[in-house]
Amino acid sequence: MTDARRVRVVVDAMGGDRAPEEILSGVSAALAADPEVEILLTGPDEVVSAFSAAHDRVTAVPTTQVIAMHEHPANAVRAKSDSSIVVGCRLVREGEADAFFSAGSTGACMTAATLVMGRIRGVARPAIATVIPTEADPVVLLDVGANADYKPEHLVAFAHMGAAYAATVLSVPAPRIALLSIGEEPTKGSQPVIEAHEAMRQQVPGFLGNVEGRDIVSGQVDVIVTDGFTGNVALKLLEGTSRSLLRQIKAEMTATWPRKLAASVIAPGLKRLKERLDPDTYGGAPLLGVRGVCIIGHGSSSAQAVSSAVRVAATAVRGDLTGSISRAIEKQEK
Amino acid sequence: MTDARRVRVVVDAMGGDRAPEEILSGVSAALAADPEVEILLTGPDEVVSAFSAAHDRVTAVPTTQVIAMHEHPANAVRAKSDSSIVVGCRLVREGEADAFFSAGSTGACMTAATLVMGRIRGVARPAIATVIPTEADPVVLLDVGANADYKPEHLVAFAHMGAAYAATVLSVPAPRIALLSIGEEPTKGSQPVIEAHEAMRQQVPGFLGNVEGRDIVSGQVDVIVTDGFTGNVALKLLEGTSRSLLRQIKAEMTATWPRKLAASVIAPGLKRLKERLDPDTYGGAPLLGVRGVCIIGHGSSSAQAVSSAVRVAATAVRGDLTGSISRAIEKQEK
Repeated sequence: MTDARRVRVVVDAMGGDRAPEEILSGVSAALAADPEVEILLTGPDEVVSAFSAAHDRVTAVPTTQVIAMHEHPANAVRAKSDSSIVVGCRLVREGEADAFFSAGSTGACMTAATLVMGRIRGVARPAIATVIPTEADPVVLLDVGANADYKPEHLVAFAHMGAAYAATVLSVPAPRIALLSIGEEPTKGSQPVIEAHEAMRQQVPGFLGNVEGRDIVSGQVDVIVTDGFTGNVALKLLEGTSRSLLRQIKAEMTATWPRKLAASVIAPGLKRLKERLDPDTYGGAPLLGVRGVCIIGHGSSSAQAVSSAVRVAATAVRGDLTGSISRAIEKQEK
Repeated sequence: MTDARRVRVVVDAMGGDRAPEEILSGVSAALAADPEVEILLTGPDEVVSAFSAAHDRVTAVPTTQVIAMHEHPANAVRAKSDSSIVVGCRLVREGEADAFFSAGSTGACMTAATLVMGRIRGVARPAIATVIPTEADPVVLLDVGANADYKPEHLVAFAHMGAAYAATVLSVPAPRIALLSIGEEPTKGSQPVIEAHEAMRQQVPGFLGNVEGRDIVSGQVDVIVTDGFTGNVALKLLEGTSRSLLRQIKAEMTATWPRKLAASVIAPGLKRLKERLDPDTYGGAPLLGVRGVCIIGHGSSSAQAVSSAVRVAATAVRGDLTGSISRAIEKQEK
C-alpha cells in the first residue's frame, strides 16, 4: 500500500521558542501515530543522540550550529553550513531524507530550502502556503510571506502549486482555485492582479475567478492565491482577530457570577470550536516550489503542531507533492 | 460654541439596499440627536418633498436620476448629472451644504466627490478610511479601497489625512501613525512599502514605524496606513472573520438544551460585545482628500448607521477636517 510506505522526515530539534522539549514530544507523538515514519533529528549532539538512543526509528544527526530567530536569513544560511536547518535541507537534497520540518526562523528555512534543495524546474519563486480552517472546507492560502514583491506570472505558478497541495495533502480531487482581489469582476484589483486573473483564466484548471477578503474564511473554494505581502497581512490579521474576539467573549462570559456558572455549561462547545479553528491541526506551512517537501512551523509550535507537521510531511511525500507541482508547471510551459 | 454650530449635511435618500426607508429613519434620528444639524435630502420628488414637509430642518432637493449599485462609476457619474449623488456633491461644492453622505455605490460616490468637489491642493489620490473598533482604542485604517495601485508618496499623504481624521473626528490630540507591513523592521515589506517607510519617518509627525496584520485589531496605534488593495482585503476579512466566529459561537451555544439555557444568561454580555464591534457605530467611511466632507455608507446601512454617519459628518465639519488635511499637506510640501 502506497499510503503506508516508509517516509523519512528530518526534524530540526532546535527550531522555535519551545525547542527542544516541545519538538521532541512532538516527534514522540508522530512516531506513535505513524509506524512507517522515520525521523532524522538535527541538532546538538547531547540533544539528538540521547533522544535517538531512547527511541526506535530515530536517527541522530548531530550538528554544531544553530540559526537564531533574529539572524539575517541569507547571511546565516551562508555562514552556518553545519546548522540544524542547513544540514536538514542537505539531507533531503542528498536523498537521505524525504522531507524537512523546522519551527525555526521562517526566513532561514526558506533561504536554506531554496538554496540547498533548489527550485523545481520552471518555478521562479517558491511560496509559503497555509491551511485556513473555515466553517466549511479548509482553504489553502498562498503566498503568505515569501514574496512581498511579485509579478503576475508568479501568481499563476502559485495557483498550480496550491492546487497540487490541496490535491495531495487535503485529498481534494479537483481543487477550486480563486484569486484574491477587491471585487469579483475580472477588472477589479491592482494592475498585476488584473493581469494575473486573465492569465489564470487561460492557464489554470479549476480557476473560478476572483474572491474577496471575506472569502478567505468562507470555505467556498479550496485554494486562494495572492502575493506574499497581502497574504501575510491577511494571515496575521486572521489570527489576531480570532484571538481578540475569543478573549473578549471570555471576558464577557466571566464578568459576573451567574455568567461564570453559565459559561461552565457552554465551555465544552467553545473548546471544540477553538480546537477546530486551531491552525496547529494543519501542521505548519509548506514551502512550495522547492525540490523536496519542506514544512515550516510557527515559532511557538507545540508538540501537537510538530506531530501534525510530520503527518503532513509524510502525506505530502506519499502523495508525491513535489512531482505533482513539477508536472503541473511543466504542462503549463508546453 | 463651535461644537454646536449649524451644519448642513446632504443625505442621498436613494443610497443603499435599504433606501429610502432606513435612510429616512436615520435622518429622523440624526435630527433628534443634534438640534443644530440641517439635512438637505436628494432623491425623487415624491420621496424627499413629503419627508421635508413633515420634518423641520429638512430641505428637499428633488433629483430625477438614480445611480444603481452595478453601474460603471465614472460613466454613471458623467451621464447622470441630475442623480442624487452628483447633485449632493454639487451642493457641497457650491457652498450650499457642508458635507455629503450616501450609502450608494462606493465607486460612484468616490468618482462624483473627486470630480465635482475636487481634490484638496496637493492631494494626488483621495483615500477611503474606516474606523476599526478594537479591544483598546479604535483605529483609523486607510486606504480601504480607493487606490489598488499606488506609489510610496501616496501612502505618505494617506498618513497626513488619517492623522487629521483621528484628530478631528476621534479627538486624538497627537495621533500615533503606523505603516502596515509584514514585519516591524523598516527593511521588511514590498519595495514601495519600504520606500514609504523611509519617507514617513522623515515627514510624518507621530510616525511610529511598521505594524503587522494582527495590529489592525490590537488598538496600539491610532492610524494604520496601507494601499487600497491590502486595506480592502483586510477590512473584508475582518468583517468576515468576526461574523463567522460569532455565528459558530452561537451554534455551539445553542447545540443542546442546557447550553441554550446557559446562553440566555450570557446573552446580554455578547450583545454588548457585538454592539461594541459594530462598525455602524463609527458611521460610514470618509473619503479623505476631497474639498468637502464626504462620508460613504455600507450598502446595507441601517438607520443607526445613517444617523452615526450624519453625526460623524457634523463632527468633521465642526472640527474643520478639510482645512486640517489641507494644512498638513501644505506644510509637508514646504
